[in-house]
Amino acid sequence: MNYFSSNFKLGILGGGQLGKMMLSDTRKFDIQTYVLDPSDEAPCKIACDKFIKGDLMDFETVYNFGKLVDVLTFEIELVNLEALLRLEDEGLKVYPSPKTLKLIQNKGIQKDFYASNEIPTANYQRFTDLKSLVVAIIESKIKLPFVWKCTEFGYDGNGVKVIREVSDLDNLANVECIAEDMIPFKNELAVIVCRSPSGEIKTYPVVEMEFHPEANQVEYVICPARIDAKVAEKARIIALNVSKKFNHVGLLAVEMFQTDDDEIIVNEVAPRPHNSGHYSIEASYTSQFENHLRAILDLPLGNTESKVAGIMVNLVGAEGFSGNVVYENIEKILAWNGVTPHIYGKKQTRPFRKMGHVTIVNSNIVEARRIAENVKNTIRVISQQ
Amino acid sequence: MNYFSSNFKLGILGGGQLGKMMLSDTRKFDIQTYVLDPSDEAPCKIACDKFIKGDLMDFETVYNFGKLVDVLTFEIELVNLEALLRLEDEGLKVYPSPKTLKLIQNKGIQKDFYASNEIPTANYQRFTDLKSLVVAIIESKIKLPFVWKCTEFGYDGNGVKVIREVSDLDNLANVECIAEDMIPFKNELAVIVCRSPSGEIKTYPVVEMEFHPEANQVEYVICPARIDAKVAEKARIIALNVSKKFNHVGLLAVEMFQTDDDEIIVNEVAPRPHNSGHYSIEASYTSQFENHLRAILDLPLGNTESKVAGIMVNLVGAEGFSGNVVYENIEKILAWNGVTPHIYGKKQTRPFRKMGHVTIVNSNIVEARRIAENVKNTIRVISQQ
Repeated sequence: MNYFSSNFKLGILGGGQLGKMMLSDTRKFDIQTYVLDPSDEAPCKIACDKFIKGDLMDFETVYNFGKLVDVLTFEIELVNLEALLRLEDEGLKVYPSPKTLKLIQNKGIQKDFYASNEIPTANYQRFTDLKSLVVAIIESKIKLPFVWKCTEFGYDGNGVKVIREVSDLDNLANVECIAEDMIPFKNELAVIVCRSPSGEIKTYPVVEMEFHPEANQVEYVICPARIDAKVAEKARIIALNVSKKFNHVGLLAVEMFQTDDDEIIVNEVAPRPHNSGHYSIEASYTSQFENHLRAILDLPLGNTESKVAGIMVNLVGAEGFSGNVVYENIEKILAWNGVTPHIYGKKQTRPFRKMGHVTIVNSNIVEARRIAENVKNTIRVISQQ
Repeated sequence: MNYFSSNFKLGILGGGQLGKMMLSDTRKFDIQTYVLDPSDEAPCKIACDKFIKGDLMDFETVYNFGKLVDVLTFEIELVNLEALLRLEDEGLKVYPSPKTLKLIQNKGIQKDFYASNEIPTANYQRFTDLKSLVVAIIESKIKLPFVWKCTEFGYDGNGVKVIREVSDLDNLANVECIAEDMIPFKNELAVIVCRSPSGEIKTYPVVEMEFHPEANQVEYVICPARIDAKVAEKARIIALNVSKKFNHVGLLAVEMFQTDDDEIIVNEVAPRPHNSGHYSIEASYTSQFENHLRAILDLPLGNTESKVAGIMVNLVGAEGFSGNVVYENIEKILAWNGVTPHIYGKKQTRPFRKMGHVTIVNSNIVEARRIAENVKNTIRVISQQ
């Protein structure tokens, strides 16, 4: 198959920042891309060959979009699964497979999959709705504290809450959910696995994540994780195993906890390029986005090792600011060594909205971490006064 | 000035591969770009905010385009100089300045500039046309062999010819030209200098170039050049001096010869991102394209040092093939360590047409050179049968 400067068409469901960063590699390879997204202001709008505005959850819209392309992928899990299953049945190459997506899209099903495949994960119980969860608490079939997660449509902290007392359940949506044991952990880790249809498989180094306490969004991603090599290798093996069990094609980001006694348990996975891999654009021999393309097109996978240490800082909208975005002090951080801002192109900021990220690369990880902290304390995503 | 996700507009004259690679950084920063190019199939067509089709040499077209933007730059020297001078007089920021471009656009004027500024360069004589050059030979005011260069519109070997006997002049265009002494040299070197309006200045490492004997196009660019450190520093100092003398803003690629006795003489310059800096996308902390943007927007310049060794191989159309392009064996080279193809997006190939390049990065330059040779001997730019 000739992908390069040819009539081949890659379809991408979702036109957000992940798609936008993928497009920089489809442009590099001159691979034609069609993008479907509901928003006129999608970050992907201008660097694809064809942008189609439409609802990603609508069967007809997704099905008809799939009919226009030769290979179909997605940059967001919230897409119409039935349409993808139909397209795959009709012979379209859909990567990752909707059969895999089906196991991941619903966190209850995802947890059941781990359990049945002996993948280490926190104990949990599934509930069809909030009421039955409350009943379980009253009947003390479940103990406080625990982590409540809605099984679908959760994203970046929405749909996840620590429940310490019953009143914490107030104002939660009455939806299907799981109650997960709270696991005391030292570190949150992630490993991105890349796998092609012909079975070639590679892992990126284990990264270490720090989350913002309120927004529950990643604040720093540090590559490589500053952990014991044995623990890192354990995490890598588990991630490889998860990818194989899912028979996954493309990128699979495996988020894990390192417990106090150095056990590794799987938290959840994302079947796409992931925030924990953004550092790879500057730090790795082959970025996660290029490797996702290589994988779904069944091309040889690129080198996942790092050239230098990489640290990523998310740029989220500052509290108290909404409206036309301004990146305050961006010219200051540009003066520092190895600092690269990525601006996603969202014109409007609001508190905690993901507006971009900054990568800091350095041959010395301690120096990179120092600069990253300065970056975090200097740049602010605010709005025009 | 707020450039990021704002109403600011950067204008780029020329929509070729240099512009295309620049757009990947304007996209990264979400800086709005307008591009002017005569071709409907320009590589820049889809990743800019607005593409305007028009003649780069036409005064009205360039002038009117300049009126639409806040800062104007170019990715090719063959643009209407009068329009740029007018726009600059009227207060538009045009970088590099047309006053600088005027000194560079005509190779005769460029050589005079070196002479009057004591910048080492090969001896030369200027001629208004081919006839007067022939007369000078007959009157033995000039000795064979020498290098003939037309003063304008030369590009990638067109417009340059070694004259060993008078008959070599047959079929040369009857245009303004220079006759330059042939200098025996060990190496062709280049240094890319980056300078901002406020005078911040940085140089990329000295690179070493190998040319294709017939096409006179660069075959390998090797960074860092495998030369003595003293010679490299001498080349760097001369390049810095050239940039300052031109009072240049943006990127200036300075091509030089290392003579047999290790003197450095300037061959010619290009006031834009340059083929000799493509390796920087993968090998440098900050690519030449990002630093060109930083410079012309008067933002702090990025680190020009390398993370790893980088070697670039040009992808030019194979002899005997014209038509719809096919990149034969590209899947083979993708399997090798640190290999990144860049496909410019030209649908039609023809002999020696620049269709793309491949960057090979490695912590070991010897290994990089070995892989680069394999890449060169494996991938072929041919046409569909």
